[in-house]
Amino acid sequence: MLDIALFGSGRIGRVHAETIASASRTRLSWVCDPLPDAADRLAGRYGAKATRDAGEVLADGTVDAVVIASPTPTHLELITAATAAGKAVLCEKPVDLDLERVDACWERIADSGPRVMIGFNRRFDPAFAEIRARVAAGEIGRLEHLVITSRDPEPPPADYARDAGGIFRDMTIHDFDTARFFLGDIAEVHAMAVPAGAGEPEGDGEADHAVVTLRSADGRLCQIANSRRCAFGYDQRIEAFGTAGMLQAANRTPTGVRAYTAAGVETAAPYLRFFLERYREAYRRELEYFAEAVESGVPPSPGYADGRAALALAEAARESVRTGRTVTVG
Amino acid sequence: MLDIALFGSGRIGRVHAETIASASRTRLSWVCDPLPDAADRLAGRYGAKATRDAGEVLADGTVDAVVIASPTPTHLELITAATAAGKAVLCEKPVDLDLERVDACWERIADSGPRVMIGFNRRFDPAFAEIRARVAAGEIGRLEHLVITSRDPEPPPADYARDAGGIFRDMTIHDFDTARFFLGDIAEVHAMAVPAGAGEPEGDGEADHAVVTLRSADGRLCQIANSRRCAFGYDQRIEAFGTAGMLQAANRTPTGVRAYTAAGVETAAPYLRFFLERYREAYRRELEYFAEAVESGVPPSPGYADGRAALALAEAARESVRTGRTVTVG
Amino acid sequence: MLDIALFGSGRIGRVHAETIASASRTRLSWVCDPLPDAADRLAGRYGAKATRDAGEVLADGTVDAVVIASPTPTHLELITAATAAGKAVLCEKPVDLDLERVDACWERIADSGPRVMIGFNRRFDPAFAEIRARVAAGEIGRLEHLVITSRDPEPPPADYARDAGGIFRDMTIHDFDTARFFLGDIAEVHAMAVPAGAGEPEGDGEADHAVVTLRSADGRLCQIANSRRCAFGYDQRIEAFGTAGMLQAANRTPTGVRAYTAAGVETAAPYLRFFLERYREAYRRELEYFAEAVESGVPPSPGYADGRAALALAEAARESVRTGRTVTVG
Amino acid sequence: MLDIALFGSGRIGRVHAETIASASRTRLSWVCDPLPDAADRLAGRYGAKATRDAGEVLADGTVDAVVIASPTPTHLELITAATAAGKAVLCEKPVDLDLERVDACWERIADSGPRVMIGFNRRFDPAFAEIRARVAAGEIGRLEHLVITSRDPEPPPADYARDAGGIFRDMTIHDFDTARFFLGDIAEVHAMAVPAGAGEPEGDGEADHAVVTLRSADGRLCQIANSRRCAFGYDQRIEAFGTAGMLQAANRTPTGVRAYTAAGVETAAPYLRFFLERYREAYRRELEYFAEAVESGVPPSPGYADGRAALALAEAARESVRTGRTVTVG
Repeated sequence: MLDIALFGSGRIGRVHAETIASASRTRLSWVCDPLPDAADRLAGRYGAKATRDAGEVLADGTVDAVVIASPTPTHLELITAATAAGKAVLCEKPVDLDLERVDACWERIADSGPRVMIGFNRRFDPAFAEIRARVAAGEIGRLEHLVITSRDPEPPPADYARDAGGIFRDMTIHDFDTARFFLGDIAEVHAMAVPAGAGEPEGDGEADHAVVTLRSADGRLCQIANSRRCAFGYDQRIEAFGTAGMLQAANRTPTGVRAYTAAGVETAAPYLRFFLERYREAYRRELEYFAEAVESGVPPSPGYADGRAALALAEAARESVRTGRTVTVG
Repeated sequence: MLDIALFGSGRIGRVHAETIASASRTRLSWVCDPLPDAADRLAGRYGAKATRDAGEVLADGTVDAVVIASPTPTHLELITAATAAGKAVLCEKPVDLDLERVDACWERIADSGPRVMIGFNRRFDPAFAEIRARVAAGEIGRLEHLVITSRDPEPPPADYARDAGGIFRDMTIHDFDTARFFLGDIAEVHAMAVPAGAGEPEGDGEADHAVVTLRSADGRLCQIANSRRCAFGYDQRIEAFGTAGMLQAANRTPTGVRAYTAAGVETAAPYLRFFLERYREAYRRELEYFAEAVESGVPPSPGYADGRAALALAEAARESVRTGRTVTVG
Repeated sequence: MLDIALFGSGRIGRVHAETIASASRTRLSWVCDPLPDAADRLAGRYGAKATRDAGEVLADGTVDAVVIASPTPTHLELITAATAAGKAVLCEKPVDLDLERVDACWERIADSGPRVMIGFNRRFDPAFAEIRARVAAGEIGRLEHLVITSRDPEPPPADYARDAGGIFRDMTIHDFDTARFFLGDIAEVHAMAVPAGAGEPEGDGEADHAVVTLRSADGRLCQIANSRRCAFGYDQRIEAFGTAGMLQAANRTPTGVRAYTAAGVETAAPYLRFFLERYREAYRRELEYFAEAVESGVPPSPGYADGRAALALAEAARESVRTGRTVTVG
Repeated sequence: MLDIALFGSGRIGRVHAETIASASRTRLSWVCDPLPDAADRLAGRYGAKATRDAGEVLADGTVDAVVIASPTPTHLELITAATAAGKAVLCEKPVDLDLERVDACWERIADSGPRVMIGFNRRFDPAFAEIRARVAAGEIGRLEHLVITSRDPEPPPADYARDAGGIFRDMTIHDFDTARFFLGDIAEVHAMAVPAGAGEPEGDGEADHAVVTLRSADGRLCQIANSRRCAFGYDQRIEAFGTAGMLQAANRTPTGVRAYTAAGVETAAPYLRFFLERYREAYRRELEYFAEAVESGVPPSPGYADGRAALALAEAARESVRTGRTVTVG
């Protein structure tokens, strides 16, 4: 059994707590949150200990690994402390909102042989993972073009949005990682963003939808479409087009029931509402993989460098919006 | 060019007139109808001659073939006269509502080498024909089970229904032929019918929905579902299940456009409204095949015997409803 | 927490063990099986006690309820003993293969206020349950016609099949219950069965596919198609047709990934392989409902009478195959 | 009846000839082609006159309108001559490959009250036209994002490709017009192209796939994906995403038949092979609309200015590929 401590008891922290507690090879030992009530409540549900003191957690020699699901500004500090304490780390995306700080952190920890995985859960979605495996097996010949559609059902709360760093660093960052998962290194980035309401885009902080075009280092193209709002549910699709065919991950309906009436036919209920439902299995597989990697001593992937690379693409997208240019990266 | 005379200028007659006139190898030369206005109108649209007198048409030596789309009670008389005049015949289903009269007619015409095709147009539907060809090619192994769904969008006018001979002889007769098209000779028939409104079935004259089970002479099963009403359009589906797989003909939407809203996703417009739209291509191919057969001297199929066989199954279904027994035929 | 003892550690027993152990309100306390190794293994996995002695289990006052997943011939005896010991019972289908024994058992236990639920898990399938709720809410007007397709991917092992009582009592019995779930009491039954290989049906013991037609007491129709083999997975569909529309539960693919190649488009992987995958959620909801019912003192449903009614329909189907008649029941 | 003369008897000329000849309100009177055999053959099939001499056609006072389906370099000269002769014109896309020549031509003809329609047939596709009408009716709220997928099954012949002006002016030009059809004036264009084979793009002449991003003057986004090759048929899709939902035009299969085997389920045959099949109805409706417009004296649309605007977007896309910049147009 792998003993795992959880930092952060918000929305995503609760997902991880349940996943850790229900997996067969992991156990939730601590929940750490500066809000003591929140930590108590969540810890209590799973028989874990609660604390406001990260140091107490990291000093506990029985803790094998930590999951960092606290606010983004705390990520680097916790990664530094946890790796110094010899814990394996699974840290939610984004690593941080600032590339320089990300690089500085790595310089601090690199020599300690850090085991850090970044929570790009979509790599573990059964459909996305299946498509990647089939592409790798050659089923569609050479992959030439990847289309990623990723729309949230509704905007996040205003206070979350204020600190999230804008659509590219908060939301598209998942899609940047997905692009890298399929295409490897990215060489060029172009983006257009549209702010909520009318008018012109100013930075990306207020954008509520955006499109991005990528070219990979080996010449493949990727189109991303994002929106903070989607009337019909959580719109999460991938289309991989190659010289010999195409593979597609469609949205899934809750039960598959279809209705046929005078108003229309083949109608299904709106798609699974949000990431908790849509990616539940991805979170489960992500944690299972992390636990396996930690136990077997294999460096977990996607790692710190992947978290940095996705952030670099987000920065490039922001620059492209400001300058109207295709931005060269890497 | 094959010169074709049309008997009957009602709904189905108009379908044939347009098909004959627009095909490349056929020409509409006569429209014959006891209602002179109706014949005039239809003939005028396509540059054909109009008459109330069937004899005038059959005496015209330039007429190669006739299409009989007049009311069912006139079918046998017109078949007799047309074959006597040496014309090839394409007669709408059903041949007649009475098996004895059907057999008597055949005895009268059999020696003249009659060329008679019965208008089971669904054999020429591209989807149904494709499934049969693929079944024949072995794609699903041995065909074991056929499911036919056939529902009209709404009941026929009361005066049509009164003379139509009940759901089995008017509507299911198409499905009986489809069953024979796929399964060959049928050995056993069982049927249940439900009259419009509540209460118990009395004969089949008033039934507005019904189910039929068939067993073919070589032991394959077939289920048919019929209804006189369908809220979401003309429901015409086939499912062929075999030892190695299944082939399915689905309903088709007018344009394929799908809508995604908070009320539901993947919604298409109701299915093609009725047989004119759904089977337009089938009528076209049926006529083309008929013209080819006439020109090449090949006996057209489905022939008179097929029309008789489908009627015999309809009679067996009526008997099964009356007796509650599986009825053996053939 | 509800303490549950499990009888039977075979395929279906293992499903229940996992479901009981992972549900939040139930605990697996015993596994009882005459094969001690099997019981030990399964009990060990979930921290339960193992025994070969049913009496030991029923004498344990901490046991609140039992799940009977042992071979069919043991069902009635275990129901009798468990209800006598005051335990609530969830018994797998079929209750027994013999209607007289089923009735005799009920006479023995009826006075003791037995709490017996029969494991017709499909009532708890999210799609089927949703359709029933929407039908009940009037979405498709008056339900007129139910179509149930139920095909296993492959025949059961020969020794299982030998004791299973034939396709109607082993396999269709689920569909009979589904028909009753939607249509209430059934008045008429007609069936045709086809044995594995060619030739004529003899009884139903060897039938490997079959079709059944039902008429409900209030005049609605139901068609069932069964097969012991299905090349493309576990084929489990329902279609409810009413005066105002239709609701349909389709098969589900493992991940929703679709392929597009020169060989064909929109291809998904074969359907979920078998009942463990397809009905996993149904088993979970069934147990959850059972636990709730036991805790709240509500008689669980479907109950003993439902188990008896489905068996009576299976007997009627067998009689219909023998006689070729529509059999009146109830 | 509208008498129409056709210039050009190649692939697209033959489509127009058949459409003109089979429509009820138009008649094909001339086929003009410098290759006399080609003109003779096509004219002969529809009872039209053949000539190599455009002047002869334009001098024929009975000719009401001309369809220009000759090679692109001849378009402007024929438009000039035909409008001078007072004929209405339906000219295939692109108007020309050079914006200056396009503008110069317009200056020559503008004063004569020219009636010129450009053959952007996709505006008349039933699915695309339906989506636009439903968007206009407000069904999806404010349209925010348009996705156009347009892939040919295989590259054109080398000699066609050599003169076609590259993917943006030959192929994407349809999609530029579709974008304008939905979004109105376009303000910004960004494009990336990939040449056949590996290596870097040089101009767009050799590109065999490309992606384009557009922003409309009123701030809506559009993504276009093009490829000269598609293993699974002619891939022609549109997705209109708005604040209240999404409308989608899917590809259509030839017959709708689906196969279910151990290799996969729900497999349809590859999509309709190419533009002749996919857009047959669009060509029919385009001509019908053109004839109506000519007869009623309404200026036909899309007109010359639309042809010019699409070409300007193609030029902007070429510039974007060269410079890596978002290009401002209009």
